[in-house]
Amino acid sequence: MRKINITRDYLMHPYGSVLIEVGNTKVICTAMIEDKVPIFLRNSGMGWITSEYSMLPASTAVRKVRDSVKGKIDGRNQEIQRLIGRSLRNVVDLKKLGERTIWIDCDVIQADGGTRTASITGAYIAMVDALVKKFKNDDEYFPVNDYLAAVSVGIIESGPVLDLCYEEDFKALVDMNVVMTGKCEFVEIQGTGENKSFSRNELNELLDLATKGNNEIIDLEKSIFGEINKYIGDK
Amino acid sequence: MRKINITRDYLMHPYGSVLIEVGNTKVICTAMIEDKVPIFLRNSGMGWITSEYSMLPASTAVRKVRDSVKGKIDGRNQEIQRLIGRSLRNVVDLKKLGERTIWIDCDVIQADGGTRTASITGAYIAMVDALVKKFKNDDEYFPVNDYLAAVSVGIIESGPVLDLCYEEDFKALVDMNVVMTGKCEFVEIQGTGENKSFSRNELNELLDLATKGNNEIIDLEKSIFGEINKYIGDK
Amino acid sequence: MRKINITRDYLMHPYGSVLIEVGNTKVICTAMIEDKVPIFLRNSGMGWITSEYSMLPASTAVRKVRDSVKGKIDGRNQEIQRLIGRSLRNVVDLKKLGERTIWIDCDVIQADGGTRTASITGAYIAMVDALVKKFKNDDEYFPVNDYLAAVSVGIIESGPVLDLCYEEDFKALVDMNVVMTGKCEFVEIQGTGENKSFSRNELNELLDLATKGNNEIIDLEKSIFGEINKYIGDK
Amino acid sequence: MRKINITRDYLMHPYGSVLIEVGNTKVICTAMIEDKVPIFLRNSGMGWITSEYSMLPASTAVRKVRDSVKGKIDGRNQEIQRLIGRSLRNVVDLKKLGERTIWIDCDVIQADGGTRTASITGAYIAMVDALVKKFKNDDEYFPVNDYLAAVSVGIIESGPVLDLCYEEDFKALVDMNVVMTGKCEFVEIQGTGENKSFSRNELNELLDLATKGNNEIIDLEKSIFGEINKYIGDK
Amino acid sequence: MRKINITRDYLMHPYGSVLIEVGNTKVICTAMIEDKVPIFLRNSGMGWITSEYSMLPASTAVRKVRDSVKGKIDGRNQEIQRLIGRSLRNVVDLKKLGERTIWIDCDVIQADGGTRTASITGAYIAMVDALVKKFKNDDEYFPVNDYLAAVSVGIIESGPVLDLCYEEDFKALVDMNVVMTGKCEFVEIQGTGENKSFSRNELNELLDLATKGNNEIIDLEKSIFGEINKYIGDK
Amino acid sequence: MRKINITRDYLMHPYGSVLIEVGNTKVICTAMIEDKVPIFLRNSGMGWITSEYSMLPASTAVRKVRDSVKGKIDGRNQEIQRLIGRSLRNVVDLKKLGERTIWIDCDVIQADGGTRTASITGAYIAMVDALVKKFKNDDEYFPVNDYLAAVSVGIIESGPVLDLCYEEDFKALVDMNVVMTGKCEFVEIQGTGENKSFSRNELNELLDLATKGNNEIIDLEKSIFGEINKYIGDK
Repeated sequence: MRKINITRDYLMHPYGSVLIEVGNTKVICTAMIEDKVPIFLRNSGMGWITSEYSMLPASTAVRKVRDSVKGKIDGRNQEIQRLIGRSLRNVVDLKKLGERTIWIDCDVIQADGGTRTASITGAYIAMVDALVKKFKNDDEYFPVNDYLAAVSVGIIESGPVLDLCYEEDFKALVDMNVVMTGKCEFVEIQGTGENKSFSRNELNELLDLATKGNNEIIDLEKSIFGEINKYIGDK
Repeated sequence: MRKINITRDYLMHPYGSVLIEVGNTKVICTAMIEDKVPIFLRNSGMGWITSEYSMLPASTAVRKVRDSVKGKIDGRNQEIQRLIGRSLRNVVDLKKLGERTIWIDCDVIQADGGTRTASITGAYIAMVDALVKKFKNDDEYFPVNDYLAAVSVGIIESGPVLDLCYEEDFKALVDMNVVMTGKCEFVEIQGTGENKSFSRNELNELLDLATKGNNEIIDLEKSIFGEINKYIGDK
Repeated sequence: MRKINITRDYLMHPYGSVLIEVGNTKVICTAMIEDKVPIFLRNSGMGWITSEYSMLPASTAVRKVRDSVKGKIDGRNQEIQRLIGRSLRNVVDLKKLGERTIWIDCDVIQADGGTRTASITGAYIAMVDALVKKFKNDDEYFPVNDYLAAVSVGIIESGPVLDLCYEEDFKALVDMNVVMTGKCEFVEIQGTGENKSFSRNELNELLDLATKGNNEIIDLEKSIFGEINKYIGDK
Repeated sequence: MRKINITRDYLMHPYGSVLIEVGNTKVICTAMIEDKVPIFLRNSGMGWITSEYSMLPASTAVRKVRDSVKGKIDGRNQEIQRLIGRSLRNVVDLKKLGERTIWIDCDVIQADGGTRTASITGAYIAMVDALVKKFKNDDEYFPVNDYLAAVSVGIIESGPVLDLCYEEDFKALVDMNVVMTGKCEFVEIQGTGENKSFSRNELNELLDLATKGNNEIIDLEKSIFGEINKYIGDK
Repeated sequence: MRKINITRDYLMHPYGSVLIEVGNTKVICTAMIEDKVPIFLRNSGMGWITSEYSMLPASTAVRKVRDSVKGKIDGRNQEIQRLIGRSLRNVVDLKKLGERTIWIDCDVIQADGGTRTASITGAYIAMVDALVKKFKNDDEYFPVNDYLAAVSVGIIESGPVLDLCYEEDFKALVDMNVVMTGKCEFVEIQGTGENKSFSRNELNELLDLATKGNNEIIDLEKSIFGEINKYIGDK
Repeated sequence: MRKINITRDYLMHPYGSVLIEVGNTKVICTAMIEDKVPIFLRNSGMGWITSEYSMLPASTAVRKVRDSVKGKIDGRNQEIQRLIGRSLRNVVDLKKLGERTIWIDCDVIQADGGTRTASITGAYIAMVDALVKKFKNDDEYFPVNDYLAAVSVGIIESGPVLDLCYEEDFKALVDMNVVMTGKCEFVEIQGTGENKSFSRNELNELLDLATKGNNEIIDLEKSIFGEINKYIGDK
């Protein structure tokens, strides 16, 4: 697995902001909390987490046309931002959150594979930081139930690998993104055979690798959270 | 698993057209072949398969606003049509197909859970039928490598279930769509914990169920294909 | 005139749903009733009928690009859905309807000429069925004043014809759509000289044909409505 | 019928430009000729006429939101611009025109009823003027076959009327637009029962009125065309 | 400076409407007052002035594609309408205006350079006329503080020039738009080096010319306002 | 003037990339060179420079909605990106550049006033770096004629100030952006009276300040360019 660097409080305006670097992949993840919810949750007492994902045009080798120029959000970007939102909501108690919306923004400034999994990990940390500020360390009401980490795995010519860089990803036969909790359970599994299908055995090898990778990330989260660790969990 | 009904040659214009009914879920799947490819494949000698998915406004209990009225394609629809396209491309030799595009359209006319998996199965059959007409049963150039089937599985209060109807899907704690080949291998796995995460054991139970369901669907495909079966496979 | 087939209660979710087949033309027409009105009618005590029309991509010989992909509603589709809405509103007492909206959806699944007139006839029947369910056969408040039918006529090389199929329509010199009531009066006349203008005499021949065709359709409606006939009319 | 004022060569850039005033209704109609055709006509030897219609925001009593702000062309505007294009194409020999496009623009600067019929009449004159300049009075190749005029008729409380102003149009029970040629034949008839249906007798009365009105307009066209009259017609 | 022609009350519906002609450039400027404000000003006691600018397709030598067809507002048009709005707001006391919106529309019907500055001058006059009607000459509440005029200046081969026509503008090396008040102060300066940069001395020459031109326009305004002059100014 | 920090080669993919920090304002500016030009320049032998500007949602205190979500580019963003493009083109010889497009992207990651002027300065440096790589230090063909710098000035309660931060900008009475060359000439001047107009004297004071600021920036550019300085200039 490539080296992960986390810079917290990267920006001055948002409550939570993280620059996450996974190898050469760099994503700015921010969390802002708004005291209102989408229409479908009004008067429900519940909160919401929504996520947006985008790549700077120069984040990739070939310049990526902006969605704003195309006038619509690219299918891949939509898929990823829906994935980020669902993953985060899985470890937050939306009742405890109350009628608030957490706006997550993940902007890739440099892409070298694994941008969606780096975004989930970075967004999780930014969200925890934002909630800590918002709830002023109030243990009882802190709505985060569990840790969250995401990593990609895949099968290339030489066999299964953990945390693919762009060059590996580009040639991968099977590509899988796995999101897991601190209890070592799955939140999301998205596996795709690109040029081949994969057997149950191959799947098991990939899941073993992903579990290993996610556990390492969760250890990293625990080490940087320090005092904050005590707020996380089901109370 | 709910009863599956396949009506082939459902429409008069497209080369391949199927009405697939899975319980109360009904989807019209069509395949049309065009003798040109998207720009990124010109002069590559390779073909392409593209897919669109939509729901009639009255296919659901609460009327669904049309994407054309919203002026953009809904995130869920995009995610599904990307999934359908990827799945079909996995079992087709795009070199053998040559510089042609297969346009797949899946239009849900009645929804009761499992519309995306029904779409994949129905689209696969429509595509095979269209290719048979196009290639006039020419065994050697027939580009379909394998069978393809898709089914949903999930965990509800009472435990794991196969092929969820809307009511079950709505209450599901874990929701998974599994696309498989005739060789019993995976093409796509998309599993999501809705209100809970899921353990490795639970995942294994779900995959067992999905394998069982997909095998039944592939048996059904074989039984209706008759003569066509001999063209399918890697030659 | 081509044979007309009406399948009522074609779908499980909407209050009214009809599959109308006119020769090879097939349209799914649905009616859903919502207990609110557009802004311009709020607190007016009046209801509204709105209509949307679309064609499946594979409903025509050459694949039709979806409006959602173009990001806007095609001019022809807009024209047709405005026509359907106006026609239906003509035979409904919007005061009696009260502050409700009837959503009409006409989705062409197979096109062979006359899709807009088939849509009007099919939508009328779906709407009556939906209102019967909504008003539980309450004679006094039932808001439908009259029967409604629509048919196309045109002039081809060999002279005036009733109910043109696609091949005739394609070659037609004059093309006219006529919507009429059970009292044999006109609701809409839209006549277009495609490659020639037409005289007053030719117009009269076309209107005679259209009247004959619409009377047959209204007879069909009466025969299938049975008990419901007694609710229709100005009370 | 209200007084009609025609100002030709109203603008300096386009080949043909007309300010048409019908009572208080004022429309700027322009015709520009481009030496290429839409894709579907390339290498066909045929030309095309396309039309756009719009209203200035302050042309109506209540400010009309611009289509560009809404991001799409309003349904009514689309319907009207399609009508204008079809009407003009009916009196032009597109083969003689050759592979050229005539761009017609009708911009309503003040609206008081009858804007679509005023647009057709004004656009016809602007188009003839543009073609005269383009074909330098070359009799043989001049592609205009016939005169063209349009007028609205309707039924109000007091009975049938010709050329409705806004106040009459607003209260009309039946509303009809009729486009006719110099041979007194119909090009387009669009009749709509707004709050009532209309009988065959009422239709005949309306058509008599429209014929009278259109004949007057064609007389006006002949009087202002002078020398140009000799080019118009089927040769 | 080219001759300026002002036709007030050019249209029947809007409170204020002006046809301004500056040489061959012709713009219809209208002002409509609505008794509500955008969300960000609700309950602030303040009003707003918003502006839209557009060009008829045939206003230029090469037909200009409509923004509504492109589905978005052209960058240049946006820049100009923002400039018009800012300029007008500078001479209006938005508190005195109260919670009202002034809608300014500038539609260029013929372009020969200087359309944006002609629009500002024309819109200012239309706005004053509209406010006079609205406030029924009530001196105390009349919210216009000052006169407003705009003119373009530029540097061409032969040196600095005032009020460039299209041909001069097209070849200009430096292009500047200057908006000024009756007190001879600046409201907006937008200077652009097109093919060269410009020195402080050149800037001063341009500003001298612009001041001269704007003073002439303000004299013209005073001469046509007559009685209205007494309402304008800071009270 | 606030402290300026320039980090060159900030990203791995683009030829030129700069993180520019002006006080708390931080912008990523990138330059990518493509070997083709927009249609209007094909076969002209000339190149083009195009620019896009955007702000991350969390770059401001109140979250900024993405243009891609609104489906169109915000007016302010369009204005700024047009300004950046024009400014850069002013100091580049597009003939020497040849048929190439330089894509400039300025993405604000943290905003505290002066984002557009920081973008121009940063984009200039990124562009020079990209061209150096592209032209491999070939002195003769290097197309950059001059240095370029931009700074904001304004008038606040206490008088004229240089390089306003957000808090000052928010309260400014006059706001001006000035783009200058290494020859101390103006490329762009955009001055706006926000709540007051400004006199010729005040303008002069602002221009003096801007000249001072831009000279400092150009000195900074020279100091960081080192060897590269010798390529810049008219040869």
